[in-house]
Amino acid sequence: MLTVFGSTALDTIRTPKKTLKNVLGGAATFAAISASNFVKTGLIAVVGSDFPKKHQRILAKRLDLQGLTVKQGKTFRYDGSYDKTLSVRETLKTELNVLADFKPTVPIEYKKSQFVYLANNDPDQNFTLISEFDKLKFSMCDTIEFWISTKRESVIKMIKAVDAIVINDEEAKLLTKEFNLIKCAKKMMEWGAKYVIIKKGEHGSLMFFDDVIFPSAGFSLEDVVDPTGAGDSFAGAMIGYLASKKSTSLSEIKKAVVYGNVLGSFAVEKYGLDGLLNLKKSDIIKRVELYEKMIRF
Amino acid sequence: MLTVFGSTALDTIRTPKKTLKNVLGGAATFAAISASNFVKTGLIAVVGSDFPKKHQRILAKRLDLQGLTVKQGKTFRYDGSYDKTLSVRETLKTELNVLADFKPTVPIEYKKSQFVYLANNDPDQNFTLISEFDKLKFSMCDTIEFWISTKRESVIKMIKAVDAIVINDEEAKLLTKEFNLIKCAKKMMEWGAKYVIIKKGEHGSLMFFDDVIFPSAGFSLEDVVDPTGAGDSFAGAMIGYLASKKSTSLSEIKKAVVYGNVLGSFAVEKYGLDGLLNLKKSDIIKRVELYEKMIRF
Repeated sequence: MLTVFGSTALDTIRTPKKTLKNVLGGAATFAAISASNFVKTGLIAVVGSDFPKKHQRILAKRLDLQGLTVKQGKTFRYDGSYDKTLSVRETLKTELNVLADFKPTVPIEYKKSQFVYLANNDPDQNFTLISEFDKLKFSMCDTIEFWISTKRESVIKMIKAVDAIVINDEEAKLLTKEFNLIKCAKKMMEWGAKYVIIKKGEHGSLMFFDDVIFPSAGFSLEDVVDPTGAGDSFAGAMIGYLASKKSTSLSEIKKAVVYGNVLGSFAVEKYGLDGLLNLKKSDIIKRVELYEKMIRF
Repeated sequence: MLTVFGSTALDTIRTPKKTLKNVLGGAATFAAISASNFVKTGLIAVVGSDFPKKHQRILAKRLDLQGLTVKQGKTFRYDGSYDKTLSVRETLKTELNVLADFKPTVPIEYKKSQFVYLANNDPDQNFTLISEFDKLKFSMCDTIEFWISTKRESVIKMIKAVDAIVINDEEAKLLTKEFNLIKCAKKMMEWGAKYVIIKKGEHGSLMFFDDVIFPSAGFSLEDVVDPTGAGDSFAGAMIGYLASKKSTSLSEIKKAVVYGNVLGSFAVEKYGLDGLLNLKKSDIIKRVELYEKMIRF
């Protein structure tokens, strides 16, 4: 099985056309639900006693929740607003609530996970948690500007401890202090990452391994309504696909990146989690085939 | 043969590592030299009496110059400065000089051209010039922010008159007043363009035809030194390749886009025109093959 560790949130998302209040969100929610299309996925996260039953049911339907702690208090809340182009998001409010002093523990069954994804959590927490998995075959982490700005050395230490880092382009530049994405990736590989995956939003992604570069164009979409969770869905699909294949061959890693692109594209087509929730395996396969056909020349 | 109409310039290019003064540049220079790797290319342009003999020799070695007017006065000059990321360019000075009142004429031999590329010239001038080619099989134009801001209706009229528009992403958004690139392309197709090619710099390009979208990832480069002329080299290679194949089949158009990406990548690896000038056909083919291998999964 795959273990995903990260945040589960109640999101308020303001887009030019629609505002969603207190919808189910969080990096680990998107990543785990995306991954669950491929493999049995366990979630390590915390929610408050206010966490709605209907959200709990959505998670329970798709994920193993032995790792989900329900704690007295309020669930982590995020409030953000997109500009009219949907490419710039402003954070209006972040309330950590029960997340503030959460000490994650790994359920016994999860400890056997060969594939582990650590979302954009505190890098020190990710670093500590990863050592609890003793059958690890492939671990991957994400990070965000907040940790790069406040705990850069911890982020670097975390990168050394995992196999792969998945990070967006602007954050890769900020972290490595380089402008060129190949230079960014090389620096992260020098720090110890075997695989570096740089997400470029609508422009797709770049995957680096040794001296291999795999550029993957984005899946072009005309109707993007809510970019929230696209990167998390990408990462979840990527590691979920690999876990389902029990493989980390270069060829499967490349395919995993394509599945990542495709799940990211489903995520942004609808509001909140809706793009992921009513997805059939056949929809995913159809879009991967369409993508292959699109980029062929 | 292919005809290219546009500017030939003396450029001053300021990059973080190096400043080049009065080097050979201009949109048509890059496009025509790029195209000349594939097909006999004629240049319609104007230079002043100060245009250096060595620049003249570079052009003469690769292009048919029946269409080059040498006029009393100073050559068009451009002075621009890149920021440290090489992704933002500030224009310091533009001196039109002999370009200001240039009335292009089409040499008799050029009139038979089946393939014509109109660089980012005054759209009214492009519109008038295109009617002088009576054996036209494929015409393509570019445009820039200046014309979109000052002569938007003329740009739209020009787009109606040609087969293909090649334009960068920011300019496509400015012109069509849309944010999504598919919506941008659809609008330009409604205006009459059969093919729309949106250039996205390091992120590659999107080609649109009917309901076909062809996304093409950029060729990843670690050492970019001077982005000047990348888009022009892209367009020149694209139409030069098509002219050499005497074809506009969808499959050749897609290949042409890949050649465009590849020539753009050669252009930015060295300063000014240097990336294009010492290129062998085998270098181009090798990089196209490398690109095919890179993006395969």
